[in-house]
Parts: sequence; structure tokens; C-alpha cells
Amino acid sequence: MNDAFKALSDPTRRKILQLLKERDLTAGEIADQFNISKPSISHHLNILKQAQLVQDERQGQNILYSLNLSVMQEAMGWFLGMIGTKGDGHDDERK
Amino acid sequence: MNDAFKALSDPTRRKILQLLKERDLTAGEIADQFNISKPSISHHLNILKQAQLVQDERQGQNILYSLNLSVMQEAMGWFLGMIGTKGDGHDDERK
Repeated sequence: MNDAFKALSDPTRRKILQLLKERDLTAGEIADQFNISKPSISHHLNILKQAQLVQDERQGQNILYSLNLSVMQEAMGWFLGMIGTKGDGHDDERK
Repeated sequence: MNDAFKALSDPTRRKILQLLKERDLTAGEIADQFNISKPSISHHLNILKQAQLVQDERQGQNILYSLNLSVMQEAMGWFLGMIGTKGDGHDDERK
């Protein structure tokens, strides 16, 4: 999860994930949404891919990027464990 | 949220937060749980404090650290938005 949280610490990368939530996109389509050079977007996509937050798949001449939700679900599970009833450790709200 | 995610990208810092979930602790009590020098624990606590994931309060001779859940709730809200039905954007599972 270290790589995932590090990848999420950049607002451009969080925005890329939000775009990919709507639909799968090529690197070019993603770059069109930003005022950032294509190499820089590629760099961000690589960091997201290494953190397993996105996956890529060749479609003809393009590489299509899509969300990989499993690591995100794992990270959310960590938050849920933290936000459960403080000092209880069992997330049991009846106590 | 950049600082929060960056702070969470380190396993020692995530472990500190988990300890603070059980109860408020001094820096010394936190350091006792790790095989790491006290200055290094102080450094981690400062990063967590700057990211507003913990807060500190002087109690007599000690400084007591406690969880600050508001930023964590904000981050979890971001994950919830991302994990909602893909391609929908409204998190409506009936679609």
C-alpha cells in the first residue's frame, strides 16, 4: 500500500483516476484534459500503474488505461478499520 | 490531502496511527513499540501532525498524541467516490 498512497499524494494523479472512473481512456485522451506535457502524463500513468491503481491494455494502435479497483478497495478497508469506534478496536458501535 | 496521502505511504506511520486508535500515547510510549530511535519517531510524528492526521496536547511534562479523524474521513470520502459504480458517477447501484 506504500506505493498506492504515494501515488495518491499528487492531485494530477487523483484527477487521472477520477477521469478513468468515467471510462477507459488512452494516454492522449488523458493528456487532453490537462495543461501538462504528454511525457509528464506518461510519467504519472507509470506511477499509477506501478502502484496497481490503473492497468493498461493494448487496443490496436492505442494503449487503453482503466482503473484497477482492488488496491483502492484495500486502502479503503484500512481507512474503515481506522475510523471504527476509537479505543474499541472492534468497530462495534453498540459499546 | 496531498500531505495526508504522503504521510500514509510509510508503514511505520500507519502503525503509529493504529496504535493511537487504541488510546492516546506519548512519543515515548509510541517509540517503545518500535525498534526505531526516538528522534526518528519524532520525525514521523511531525509528518503526521503536519498532515493533520494526529494532534498533540501538553499534559504536565508529557506531550500526548491523539488521532485527528477529520482528514482521514475526508480521504475515505474520496475513496468512496472512486469505488462507487464505475462509469456512473452517481454511486447508484440500481443502474
